[in-house]
Amino acid sequence: MPQGQPAVVPTDGLTTRQRRNRPLLVLHTGEMKGKSTAAFGLALRGWNQGWSIGVFQFVKSAKWKVGEENAFRALGRLHEQTGEGGPVEWHKMGEGWSWSRKQGTEEDHAAAAREGWQEIARRLSAEQHGLYVLDEFTYPLHWGWIDVDEVVTALRERPGHQHVVITGRYAPQALVDAADLVVEMTKVKHPMDAGQKGQKGIEW
Amino acid sequence: MPQGQPAVVPTDGLTTRQRRNRPLLVLHTGEMKGKSTAAFGLALRGWNQGWSIGVFQFVKSAKWKVGEENAFRALGRLHEQTGEGGPVEWHKMGEGWSWSRKQGTEEDHAAAAREGWQEIARRLSAEQHGLYVLDEFTYPLHWGWIDVDEVVTALRERPGHQHVVITGRYAPQALVDAADLVVEMTKVKHPMDAGQKGQKGIEW
Repeated sequence: MPQGQPAVVPTDGLTTRQRRNRPLLVLHTGEMKGKSTAAFGLALRGWNQGWSIGVFQFVKSAKWKVGEENAFRALGRLHEQTGEGGPVEWHKMGEGWSWSRKQGTEEDHAAAAREGWQEIARRLSAEQHGLYVLDEFTYPLHWGWIDVDEVVTALRERPGHQHVVITGRYAPQALVDAADLVVEMTKVKHPMDAGQKGQKGIEW
Repeated sequence: MPQGQPAVVPTDGLTTRQRRNRPLLVLHTGEMKGKSTAAFGLALRGWNQGWSIGVFQFVKSAKWKVGEENAFRALGRLHEQTGEGGPVEWHKMGEGWSWSRKQGTEEDHAAAAREGWQEIARRLSAEQHGLYVLDEFTYPLHWGWIDVDEVVTALRERPGHQHVVITGRYAPQALVDAADLVVEMTKVKHPMDAGQKGQKGIEW
């Protein structure tokens, strides 16, 4: 966590307090583990602030369930029961978004990704969440399934005070340019180098 | 998450399953945000597996409370009440460890750090937790407060199946060498560059 004085004092007409509390677009990219886990760690802080947390997982199968999902669903139930923290919504695509799953039809993943993004764009316009985690959202952008310029415009013009965290490799340059905070997770050493594959509790 | 085949198949006499489930020593280092948040994201996965989670925060004041602490304490209570997930313990030093706070005396931070490490070493010997988060533990190592070789030996020789995640800058080389997984969080862009300081829900 950086401390001390900012490198520059901007001439944006904002007070330090106003500037400090501007909503952030955060990007976790790079080849290494930690992109999603760091996003969910950030979401824990937001939950504790009472923010509405919206998680949108791209790419992974709707059948795939990471440990964070159970933990956040538990935190969401805790909020409903006790008022502690904030509400939590968790949506997955892969076989279609959870609110529009078309059972029995052949899936068009690109269309599903676009549909997912459109739902997110609607929620941004409606100021529905305090923090959005768009997990592995860089892939449908990288693959051209969703228009990067449309996404960047919607993010830049989002109203109110909504933080957005996007994770995944191959982040398009326009997204990097638009982000306030970009962390690259780089590999120093990985167990795979020594022949060890992933395991429960660590990889999912 | 890496996929596919490991680069080498080791001649360690273990089956793939045995090797896959070896406990990991994970290190999150580098100058950038995400080291601790990724560790706590990993702890969410462990909690969901029902592991006992032990968090040990070094350096930060005992008065400083990050959002993750409240969230994990809530998950720990949920476990006690419903059996969901695993138990959670959260200890801070700074003004002494929470189990040995000496009120009213002048603190010796180096001694407190060593005392904290000794408690962790005892727990490792007793196989007390499934996952240890040693948050910002690299600093007392870097400053020479705690002997790196002693730590590395205790970690290498820890019995049973205990995962350990260590976070912080300036990781000593002996710790990097001992770790199975090392991620470096590097800066691409930070809001501080544009004059924006930290804010609640994001930095804590």
